Amino acid sequence: MKFSSKVEKCQLSPIRKFYPYAVEAQKRGKTIYHLNIGQPDVETPKAFFDAVREFSSPVMAYTASPGLPALIEAIQGYYDKLGMHFDTDDILITTGGSEALAIAMQCILDDGDEILIPEPFYPNYSTMAYTCGAKIHPVPTKPEEGYWYADRARIEAEINDHTRAILLTNPGNPTGTVLTDEEMRMLVDVAKEHDLFLIGDEAYREFVYGGEGLRSFGEFPDAAENVVIIDTCSKRFSACGARVGCLISRNRELMNHAMKYAQARLCVATLDQTACAHLYSVGPEYFAAVREEYKRRRDTVVRKLQEIPGVVCECPKGAFYLMAALPVDDADKFQMWLLREFDDHGDTVMFAPGEPFYATPGKGRNEIRIAYVIEQKKLERALDLLRLGIEAYNKR
Amino acid sequence: MKFSSKVEKCQLSPIRKFYPYAVEAQKRGKTIYHLNIGQPDVETPKAFFDAVREFSSPVMAYTASPGLPALIEAIQGYYDKLGMHFDTDDILITTGGSEALAIAMQCILDDGDEILIPEPFYPNYSTMAYTCGAKIHPVPTKPEEGYWYADRARIEAEINDHTRAILLTNPGNPTGTVLTDEEMRMLVDVAKEHDLFLIGDEAYREFVYGGEGLRSFGEFPDAAENVVIIDTCSKRFSACGARVGCLISRNRELMNHAMKYAQARLCVATLDQTACAHLYSVGPEYFAAVREEYKRRRDTVVRKLQEIPGVVCECPKGAFYLMAALPVDDADKFQMWLLREFDDHGDTVMFAPGEPFYATPGKGRNEIRIAYVIEQKKLERALDLLRLGIEAYNKR
Repeated sequence: MKFSSKVEKCQLSPIRKFYPYAVEAQKRGKTIYHLNIGQPDVETPKAFFDAVREFSSPVMAYTASPGLPALIEAIQGYYDKLGMHFDTDDILITTGGSEALAIAMQCILDDGDEILIPEPFYPNYSTMAYTCGAKIHPVPTKPEEGYWYADRARIEAEINDHTRAILLTNPGNPTGTVLTDEEMRMLVDVAKEHDLFLIGDEAYREFVYGGEGLRSFGEFPDAAENVVIIDTCSKRFSACGARVGCLISRNRELMNHAMKYAQARLCVATLDQTACAHLYSVGPEYFAAVREEYKRRRDTVVRKLQEIPGVVCECPKGAFYLMAALPVDDADKFQMWLLREFDDHGDTVMFAPGEPFYATPGKGRNEIRIAYVIEQKKLERALDLLRLGIEAYNKR
Repeated sequence: MKFSSKVEKCQLSPIRKFYPYAVEAQKRGKTIYHLNIGQPDVETPKAFFDAVREFSSPVMAYTASPGLPALIEAIQGYYDKLGMHFDTDDILITTGGSEALAIAMQCILDDGDEILIPEPFYPNYSTMAYTCGAKIHPVPTKPEEGYWYADRARIEAEINDHTRAILLTNPGNPTGTVLTDEEMRMLVDVAKEHDLFLIGDEAYREFVYGGEGLRSFGEFPDAAENVVIIDTCSKRFSACGARVGCLISRNRELMNHAMKYAQARLCVATLDQTACAHLYSVGPEYFAAVREEYKRRRDTVVRKLQEIPGVVCECPKGAFYLMAALPVDDADKFQMWLLREFDDHGDTVMFAPGEPFYATPGKGRNEIRIAYVIEQKKLERALDLLRLGIEAYNKR
């Protein structure tokens, strides 16, 4: 049977190939320390579970396609507190940030179009762009520069007749880069001048560690037609499994188009929307504590990475990921070797090899992404294992 | 700003335009009887809410992209009881039947492709096909024939070089048609002979009123490469707001492609999957009672419709919808008039005008879809209002 040329271009998760080997390693009694997973270990606020238990409607019915009014209102209130106002119609509740991204791209991207994204980037963006018949045009960065990309000349050099949008993950996954206010202004100006959509994937907005305010591309009302914000409860409230996010834009035509997709999938899960509305009552002390914990972990990871000879790693300012270049030939082969050949007192470690985060062939081969979403002690052990692994791997 | 040519082809729900007028009518004190909504009034089984309340994990974490193992197992068990076996890898849990449909089409349909669907059909299929760069090629039917389409010559006449799949909603939304075993066999043979996918949207499988068994295109193992099943908990368990469905196929290449999309959206809501797994413990007495209730409603609707002079309506065999042709010039204008001009003792009625269920321009103009998901007494009153409305409308 013949399949769509678009799905043929998409890839299965490159992490998947390691699973059978991880399972096998565990069967042989190895303990695996996971630096490869983006699932936070932080507890979801009690408000979520309280709301779930109090849900009393006897019929688990559809909600309206644009989303549960109470949730839209809660999100409006959250943004109002950050100094940005959005009308009810500017906010579309989605099944996680993932659906917000998919809908935004489907509204904007056509066959042959390009979307500009600094690489390394979140690999699922590729599937979404290919589904539209479009592709990602990468903006290059370097590990030695901390994966910095916010340079006007560097970005404008990549814009061509096919470019329809710039997508920025800020704070960055997988790099942890955080844009300054001036950089954000400049990027908005570039989008306006070149008539491009500026999609801000701001899933990690709360996770900044240098005392910065919580920034959003929604702060630029002069770019109302250009800016699209991808938001989600997943990381903000450690509620990844609730699958509740939203698409935000003051561009009414875009929101009108987005509503077509929203109606075609009927609605977002009713119970999860109800519970997530209650999450927005969580106070700043929750975020302060979570931020403090992640900052401690980030500092540990960076310190221990920088102690490993040959590792290139600049200290990232946000999210709970970082990329690092390792003194190995190929991070993919190294990961496989760590699972199949290596152990230290029965322990080994998993990370995400860097190549799938790049669109440029061959780039990122000696890089890895680390997610620091496990507790401090385990994190230290995992980094020790990485160091021991590198030494042993290069001595083979 | 420029948008995708694909989203430009998609339509907002045609029902939406009536909402402001419905709200206005209610403000003026009118009571509206709703025959336009597909949301069942049946209570969701207690097992769902019990499972929700018992959920005890402190972190609302992602589940695996293919779905919660307990839910996949429950669905396997359900099909085993119906005499069909599916392997774990044949079942992909999706965010409602809607996502299963979207994923199936995205795997199969490419730019310029066609998908054969008997009209009238569920209007959201159009958005999904357009999103793939494809379009729906309708198979014509007639109200006087009860919207019957299962004729080999009629279907083969519509197959061309662009045809990639046949999509059948069985039992049918909006028509309530139910295929016989012989018709299903014939349709499978057509798909096999012409090398087409056969997508069976079987969301209403349980809702058959003539004592028929619960049929599925999954019963034809000789068409393992062709058959794709769309299934959902929404109507089966009156759990529409849970957004839990599944895509089922023995075609491994298809399932492999589908997994790419599943991974790009990470997972289906964890809590809803957990609760839906428990729904599959509901016994046959639940379905027998629900079926009995809907059958009574169907009989009422058909009896009262057939009493209205000039109405064409054959008694449908399944689902909880029916289409009827009315003795009016234009069902859309008639609906607007019912909201703005008509009332009987302060009451009026809403249905879904038929035209949006057709791909052929101009067809269905005097037809309507009725959903019989409200209680018996209200249903009778609604049908009386329809009769009175038709009389008054044609006497203007």
